Amino acid sequence: MHSPQIRKLIDLFSKFPTVGPRTAARFVFHLLSLSGEEVKELTSEISKLKENVKLCESCFKSFEPFSLDRHSRLCEICRDPGRKKELLCVVEKETDLIPIEKTKKYRGLYLILGGTVSALKKEGLRKLRVKELLERVKNPEIKEILLALNPTTEGEATALYLERQLKPLNKKTTRLGRGLPMGAELEYADDQTLSSALESRR
Amino acid sequence: MHSPQIRKLIDLFSKFPTVGPRTAARFVFHLLSLSGEEVKELTSEISKLKENVKLCESCFKSFEPFSLDRHSRLCEICRDPGRKKELLCVVEKETDLIPIEKTKKYRGLYLILGGTVSALKKEGLRKLRVKELLERVKNPEIKEILLALNPTTEGEATALYLERQLKPLNKKTTRLGRGLPMGAELEYADDQTLSSALESRR
Amino acid sequence: MHSPQIRKLIDLFSKFPTVGPRTAARFVFHLLSLSGEEVKELTSEISKLKENVKLCESCFKSFEPFSLDRHSRLCEICRDPGRKKELLCVVEKETDLIPIEKTKKYRGLYLILGGTVSALKKEGLRKLRVKELLERVKNPEIKEILLALNPTTEGEATALYLERQLKPLNKKTTRLGRGLPMGAELEYADDQTLSSALESRR
Amino acid sequence: MHSPQIRKLIDLFSKFPTVGPRTAARFVFHLLSLSGEEVKELTSEISKLKENVKLCESCFKSFEPFSLDRHSRLCEICRDPGRKKELLCVVEKETDLIPIEKTKKYRGLYLILGGTVSALKKEGLRKLRVKELLERVKNPEIKEILLALNPTTEGEATALYLERQLKPLNKKTTRLGRGLPMGAELEYADDQTLSSALESRR
Repeated sequence: MHSPQIRKLIDLFSKFPTVGPRTAARFVFHLLSLSGEEVKELTSEISKLKENVKLCESCFKSFEPFSLDRHSRLCEICRDPGRKKELLCVVEKETDLIPIEKTKKYRGLYLILGGTVSALKKEGLRKLRVKELLERVKNPEIKEILLALNPTTEGEATALYLERQLKPLNKKTTRLGRGLPMGAELEYADDQTLSSALESRR
Repeated sequence: MHSPQIRKLIDLFSKFPTVGPRTAARFVFHLLSLSGEEVKELTSEISKLKENVKLCESCFKSFEPFSLDRHSRLCEICRDPGRKKELLCVVEKETDLIPIEKTKKYRGLYLILGGTVSALKKEGLRKLRVKELLERVKNPEIKEILLALNPTTEGEATALYLERQLKPLNKKTTRLGRGLPMGAELEYADDQTLSSALESRR
Repeated sequence: MHSPQIRKLIDLFSKFPTVGPRTAARFVFHLLSLSGEEVKELTSEISKLKENVKLCESCFKSFEPFSLDRHSRLCEICRDPGRKKELLCVVEKETDLIPIEKTKKYRGLYLILGGTVSALKKEGLRKLRVKELLERVKNPEIKEILLALNPTTEGEATALYLERQLKPLNKKTTRLGRGLPMGAELEYADDQTLSSALESRR
Repeated sequence: MHSPQIRKLIDLFSKFPTVGPRTAARFVFHLLSLSGEEVKELTSEISKLKENVKLCESCFKSFEPFSLDRHSRLCEICRDPGRKKELLCVVEKETDLIPIEKTKKYRGLYLILGGTVSALKKEGLRKLRVKELLERVKNPEIKEILLALNPTTEGEATALYLERQLKPLNKKTTRLGRGLPMGAELEYADDQTLSSALESRR
């Protein structure tokens, strides 16, 4: 149905998260409706992205050295002297760090693991920054490691794996509290969530 | 469209929880498709319900005296000597008590409040068993009152109201733990839930 | 969890269309919250239903003889002299007849088939009023039979079956027009629907 | 929260159809995870899009001259001698043309209008190719104009507007057939759809 050039772009956009071939086609028709300058602006910003945005050497969060100190290798959180160095929060990906920051309740540091590992596919492990985590945690300043992984099967398996890896270091590891979320109804709560809510009553 | 007899029954079924006029009409046509005996069985069971099922005088849960001790005025939970008398769990309605029992993690007693009160409509208060709660809590055996209300606006307002009423009695009041439920994703968690999950990490 | 009397009623309500055990339990607790008079009203109306409501001998729609002529064996539609006798609309069930009447575009008569037959389970056939349909259609006044069955796999199989049965009678059979419904979007229309919409353009 | 470079790209992606700021952020993090070559491939394909893909001068569909005849100003459909020149199908946008082609039931030509006009905001009119439509329809070969707009409020208003504009030309205008779509249930069909289905029975 589509011409080769359009098909090629549909393929590339289909690799974007949440995008299927139908939405990808809509993206291409959207691009066709843009002016030449608008297309140029988009491609130029995409090209500049990898130049301007670096990954922090300590926590692996993206940051823009240019907007801080040109030669900085650390992000704005890791450079912030107000942050508590004794608390390290391990998250799966950068989009998990954002809502934690938004709560303004967390003042420790981070490490972005880069993924989770399913209980079955152990190869996923290689992509995770487990070595980097173990290296960083050696720092005696770190007293507690909060494994802030999703309370899903994969997140649980990953937390369990990390706990085992961290055990020899003899540091306190914690996880996010389980319980009823805002707006929940007891009547429809699952067994495990309600059990956690009963145990952590306060 | 419908004849008077059918309309009358549609009206009655429309008062059932979750039932609108369309579903009510389907119920009536379902009844019409039943045999005479099936209809008789249904009406007979409905009639026997209020005769056979009583409300427990202590916790207001429904129970069948016939299946316990014919003259019992207490339900099977309140009669159970294995239950911890120092812990009282206040729930909105009987359907909220069921999932708590299913967890098998709670071994205290209950009181069914009979509803919640919205912050705005204070008249709702009269229907709640607040007086019964205050009376029961005077029992020195009770050390902790767990206000197991839904973490919704109405549930919160009700818990707040009960806390104020219970204050003069100087007993410990608790609430269900807040946090991430099973299967949640940090990325989509609301601010309050995530704040609670951070605070109650363990 | 539930007592025998409550369990019994949950079982009976679970047979109602769209009702699962959870909703059935909510129905029972609703009944428990009603006054004695309210329960009596409900059971009395259910009992009177089968006495007061009859099935029309011609179209099998439910009707109340009492509200028409005490001894009538025909419903208000079949008795209406303004109805066109040359057009007979076959529907699956009474709840399908209602929306057709609401359009006020149809002025013919009806026959309620009493179900559909899946392509696989041929036993379903016995419950359908196929014999009654063939008998009624012999009436020379009837010129067209509109098979108003759902455009679903089961509805299609039933229409096909009826067409074959009606063939020897040499009468015109029609079906409801296919096409795009109100509010549809071409982009998401399925192939068959769009093909019909193209063919029936006007 | 986000750095300026990331914010800039989130803004640009948020203009894509169906994309909100949250999905746009996920797109940016996806780009950050790509290799330099993968980013280059994407920007290069986006840049080539407007060079390689042209709009057909007759129907305004996108096409790639390179894959047909280098200097062609007409798309593959308009160039196809097998297409019926007496039938012109007017669609809102290219993504509406695709499912019509997929049915393989339509063999006429097209004109992409470029949008719809809401009944309220008449300014939208200027963007539509109404002048181009009126010009093209003057061709005596065209006998029927099928206004294949969505059966939505906006689509209806646009079809009505076009019918009025086309009236002086005295050509047959048609619309897509309305009716029940595949899988619909009579019980839940809206009044207008069911009325159309009754009228267009066949």
